[in-house]
Amino acid sequence: MAESGSTPQPGRRLSTGRLEAFSDGVFAIAITLLVLEISLPEGSEDDLLAAVLAQWPSYLAYVVSFATIGVTWLEHNAITDYMEYADTVVVRVNLLLLLLVSFLPFPTRLVAESLGDRDAERVAATIYGLNLLLIAVLLFVLWRYVVSEGHLRADAGDEEITVVTQRLTPGFAGYVALLVLGLFLPTLAVIGYLAVALYLLIPFAVFRRRP
Amino acid sequence: MAESGSTPQPGRRLSTGRLEAFSDGVFAIAITLLVLEISLPEGSEDDLLAAVLAQWPSYLAYVVSFATIGVTWLEHNAITDYMEYADTVVVRVNLLLLLLVSFLPFPTRLVAESLGDRDAERVAATIYGLNLLLIAVLLFVLWRYVVSEGHLRADAGDEEITVVTQRLTPGFAGYVALLVLGLFLPTLAVIGYLAVALYLLIPFAVFRRRP
Amino acid sequence: MAESGSTPQPGRRLSTGRLEAFSDGVFAIAITLLVLEISLPEGSEDDLLAAVLAQWPSYLAYVVSFATIGVTWLEHNAITDYMEYADTVVVRVNLLLLLLVSFLPFPTRLVAESLGDRDAERVAATIYGLNLLLIAVLLFVLWRYVVSEGHLRADAGDEEITVVTQRLTPGFAGYVALLVLGLFLPTLAVIGYLAVALYLLIPFAVFRRRP
Amino acid sequence: MAESGSTPQPGRRLSTGRLEAFSDGVFAIAITLLVLEISLPEGSEDDLLAAVLAQWPSYLAYVVSFATIGVTWLEHNAITDYMEYADTVVVRVNLLLLLLVSFLPFPTRLVAESLGDRDAERVAATIYGLNLLLIAVLLFVLWRYVVSEGHLRADAGDEEITVVTQRLTPGFAGYVALLVLGLFLPTLAVIGYLAVALYLLIPFAVFRRRP
Repeated sequence: MAESGSTPQPGRRLSTGRLEAFSDGVFAIAITLLVLEISLPEGSEDDLLAAVLAQWPSYLAYVVSFATIGVTWLEHNAITDYMEYADTVVVRVNLLLLLLVSFLPFPTRLVAESLGDRDAERVAATIYGLNLLLIAVLLFVLWRYVVSEGHLRADAGDEEITVVTQRLTPGFAGYVALLVLGLFLPTLAVIGYLAVALYLLIPFAVFRRRP
Repeated sequence: MAESGSTPQPGRRLSTGRLEAFSDGVFAIAITLLVLEISLPEGSEDDLLAAVLAQWPSYLAYVVSFATIGVTWLEHNAITDYMEYADTVVVRVNLLLLLLVSFLPFPTRLVAESLGDRDAERVAATIYGLNLLLIAVLLFVLWRYVVSEGHLRADAGDEEITVVTQRLTPGFAGYVALLVLGLFLPTLAVIGYLAVALYLLIPFAVFRRRP
Repeated sequence: MAESGSTPQPGRRLSTGRLEAFSDGVFAIAITLLVLEISLPEGSEDDLLAAVLAQWPSYLAYVVSFATIGVTWLEHNAITDYMEYADTVVVRVNLLLLLLVSFLPFPTRLVAESLGDRDAERVAATIYGLNLLLIAVLLFVLWRYVVSEGHLRADAGDEEITVVTQRLTPGFAGYVALLVLGLFLPTLAVIGYLAVALYLLIPFAVFRRRP
Repeated sequence: MAESGSTPQPGRRLSTGRLEAFSDGVFAIAITLLVLEISLPEGSEDDLLAAVLAQWPSYLAYVVSFATIGVTWLEHNAITDYMEYADTVVVRVNLLLLLLVSFLPFPTRLVAESLGDRDAERVAATIYGLNLLLIAVLLFVLWRYVVSEGHLRADAGDEEITVVTQRLTPGFAGYVALLVLGLFLPTLAVIGYLAVALYLLIPFAVFRRRP
């Protein structure tokens, strides 16, 4: 698992196995910890149904963050799939990406708790959007580095590389637009972040039509 | 680990390795986080034994959720065992399944905290049952998709496929019946959910008798 | 990872790969969640050093539980190392073992919070000891089943099997004795549980002397 | 996964596969749990931005601990990469290292909560520094043991071994100096711990220049 083949590689061409295992662990934990941010206020037993329904911002934030971490994991997966081996820069950029991913539960809670109060909503939506934008930027940086340094697998076709690059790009414009929108209509911006994650989840399916 | 063989497969036939690793991570974390939902009320040190025993709904909810996630992991295991490779739809249906699994600690806590108050019990048992039902539905959808798209391993016999299909079906009727029961006798419904999970855990053993 | 070799095995001889991955996940999470049970009381900033030192029962409970889960993981490791393949009973006994392991943070907190109050201490130490005893029993049951059903690897020598069996046995007497002791001297019993874990951690080293 | 090759090795030369999987799990969980220590005080919705900014010690502590666990994971990775097989001592020293790593969220919270109160700051920074120092010591002990017992892979060159040894050494002096500094200027010491982690993260890149 820690070894990439029978020929040992000096000069630290790191195998991707343990990088993937560690990253998968962090993605899986961050995505599962999100549920801990959902909690009912004291005394809500009186009318539990109303209390549960009044919590809708928590569920919205939960689904947005879950979808975002999910799509990030998928794209991370695509990157490491095409990667022949990692190097020391890849490992560090990856750590920074994981820092941003595992930080996401905090802004998620901010969004969940602040909705209802307009000023707090704007602050929370902005912090949340910045976190999402930084994750998209880091994923893009990671991919560009892997491509430019020639760490790709020999069988990765030019067309496939272009497709992955195109997949990683559109998030930026969407996130920047939603960050601005969030200053005026924060709840709508959060729904917009969900739309971005769902949009990023869907079009990967075009791959499927190829033999 | 990320590659299923020596021949690279263009057209995104995704290997199941990392899908399994990520899913196992989420299952393992969700099942282990359940214990965090159990907490003693302040001041319970006065008569700790009584306080611990009075918590029985928490333990019941813990065991039901643990058994349900456990059986879901087992069935997920069976599905991916027969799956030759994943595609982009499998990955997304799987993410939705994981969302429902990692959400389960929240309704578990609702059940644990509401028992004793009849109205709250009914609401909590219904939400809990809906979550369990949706997990069963998603597992079934995942399996049907894998079978209908022909992603099965070549050596998977028709009989085996039928057995897995039959295994995934009975949950529905049970869950729907218990959802209705839960409107009248919520605690009994929760015990019923445990019975379903235990029933699903046991009969897999029939496999064993075959050589 | 999900496949044990090139020859597919019908009749559900389950490969141990995913069983190990899932179990490792639960062990790793349970052992890491223990730290969340340590928390300082409000207002302890006034004299943080005193507050931190007054927390010693929390650290003791943390170390005991960490050592116990650690040694359980090691012994689980030894069992699956000698196991050629799992079957449906192994998977279910293993789930029950994992339930007990992931429940451990709750009695750990009981012990940490109750020390100082004699009655509560006795209750907490007894619950804690029962949990530890059940873990030891389940490990033993798992091993006996694997041996008696002939699921061992062909190269597992009789002597080695005897050594593992002997390793798994001594916990029982110790735990039962400490359970009784805990009714009178609960703190001493908790220290005793640490001694058992450390004792179980150490003698494995005798293996090392063999070539 | 649990076996290092086709030849079974009696005498407990443990394969590194499951050791790595378990360790990766603990590292990944500990690094992801750090975010749970960040929480806003009640009533901070009034001026969320000010409340979020006032929390800066929490973010600092989060980043320091994340970087430290990240670099520890990298160095652990380097050690197991060069390790041909583990033995029973390696497994136990590794458990002790994991205990210290998974304990880190507690001192991280102490630092985050105490900053602002000088006396508490000094206590927290000292406990935090001791934890970091002990992690560095354990990593060093683990590596020295592996080298001195000859558990290295046959192809590990002397030069590479020296480089790893040099990598693991400098932390000590830094941590001891910062522990002393922390008695007078605790916040500066915490920033210093970040500097140490970043310093340890960067120079690994010298490996890269080698072919």
